[in-house]
Amino acid sequence: MTLLAVLGPDLVPTVVPADTPILRADDLGAVRGDGVFETANVRGGRPWLLDAHLDRMARSAAALDLALPAREALVALADTACRAWPAADEGALRIVCTRGPESGGPPTVYATLNPITDHQRAKRRSGVAVRTLPLGIPVAVRTAEPALLAGAKTLSYAVNMACQRWATAHGADDVLWVSADGYALEAPTSSLVWLRDGVLCTVPPAETGILAGTTAAHLLSRAGELGWTAREQLVRPAELADAQGVWLTSSARGPVEVRSLDDTPLGPSPETTRITKLLGFPT
Amino acid sequence: MTLLAVLGPDLVPTVVPADTPILRADDLGAVRGDGVFETANVRGGRPWLLDAHLDRMARSAAALDLALPAREALVALADTACRAWPAADEGALRIVCTRGPESGGPPTVYATLNPITDHQRAKRRSGVAVRTLPLGIPVAVRTAEPALLAGAKTLSYAVNMACQRWATAHGADDVLWVSADGYALEAPTSSLVWLRDGVLCTVPPAETGILAGTTAAHLLSRAGELGWTAREQLVRPAELADAQGVWLTSSARGPVEVRSLDDTPLGPSPETTRITKLLGFPT
Repeated sequence: MTLLAVLGPDLVPTVVPADTPILRADDLGAVRGDGVFETANVRGGRPWLLDAHLDRMARSAAALDLALPAREALVALADTACRAWPAADEGALRIVCTRGPESGGPPTVYATLNPITDHQRAKRRSGVAVRTLPLGIPVAVRTAEPALLAGAKTLSYAVNMACQRWATAHGADDVLWVSADGYALEAPTSSLVWLRDGVLCTVPPAETGILAGTTAAHLLSRAGELGWTAREQLVRPAELADAQGVWLTSSARGPVEVRSLDDTPLGPSPETTRITKLLGFPT
Repeated sequence: MTLLAVLGPDLVPTVVPADTPILRADDLGAVRGDGVFETANVRGGRPWLLDAHLDRMARSAAALDLALPAREALVALADTACRAWPAADEGALRIVCTRGPESGGPPTVYATLNPITDHQRAKRRSGVAVRTLPLGIPVAVRTAEPALLAGAKTLSYAVNMACQRWATAHGADDVLWVSADGYALEAPTSSLVWLRDGVLCTVPPAETGILAGTTAAHLLSRAGELGWTAREQLVRPAELADAQGVWLTSSARGPVEVRSLDDTPLGPSPETTRITKLLGFPT
């Protein structure tokens, strides 16, 4: 981690040394994963799609019944971190808000800024090998009970991390979760996007309980600039085999082409470069 | 939080002021809920069932592919915290091990010690009102894929906390999760135990993917002392209506009687006092 900005109790953000311990041992964010976060791409010294990220953070916080600081304070926090960052460098800005100490006290609110790693850049060029993993829940059930927090971006990512380790152990780069009824959902830290017959598609968040992908939504909103229409729809993994391109999109890594899904090779798609350029990600 | 002991990189535990920030902003325990924890009851200045808790912590860490410090160091950490605690006071000892900073570095390992709250003591006497909540996953599916971390006690408890808030919002004290196929599973921070016809029962962890309850297992191992036999078995919530006692057991709160399940009043059971005394919990 190379840069840390902390929002004080007075809602004034300050840059502090990145290795400063800032969380108490009983912060519910730290001992219960009870908090929310967002990651935004930083280019030209500015956070990209910050409004959409803060909108989603507000939705996540509402699902957790968590009081966020005023939006202006979160914007100031992001600005403070970005101003201390070399404008020429691409980065990943993470904004975190916890529930605060179990014994009472204000939430812990901070932002970190890290460079995009060489590994992430390499995957933009090479694409990724993906394996499917059944989650065991039918799509309709995931959204039935708000207390199960479907679609909220919380700090409780232990299963997400375990599934990415599972992918590595199986010789893949990433995982595509699949519902009990056989529909593709999302990856642990990215969204699924695919192109078929001039229609750029992603999985419908409201219907499936997946996280609403900020990069995916932005990409679909600009599909017309590439001559396509856009649509949310359910898809089975096998139906992706003859798509004209399949991508995992995330704010840090951008759009990354899926080059194999289980044992099926995919692509390369000539559209990967067009999408990457449209979204302003360096390759 | 009233007491904090931290395990140094030299594996030497030290008591530090409880409000000392000890976690870095990029500790994966704090930003990904990527770590494990245990909570043990402390009485007479000693952690109760510490061996069983450390056994379970080792299983959780294995599921997460997380390297724990040597067991002796964790025992020393618990001892250090308990020695600094008034021997006459009952407490809840939490031991936490995170994956450490995302940018590299050792795991963060610490223990906190808190008094049992008046609220927890009151529930020991009054029992609790519980509502069922469907989790949407059939029991057989939960254990099929180890990467989904069924049975591991991780720091990713956002859903557990949200479900407890859901209970409060519905006028109840706690939640009983139910599988898609209608079987009672567990509560967000406790295990289900019930008595029927001289058999003390709990839900089978291996078959259902629930957390193996330390207090529940210990209680069942001592069922003979109360003149009962013990068995793990599946149960549907409606079948609990004519049990001779239904309890939620946890290390902090001990055995707490379920006095209503959804709209069905239960108990009071004359066995609650016997169980509480057997396990050495003050009332």
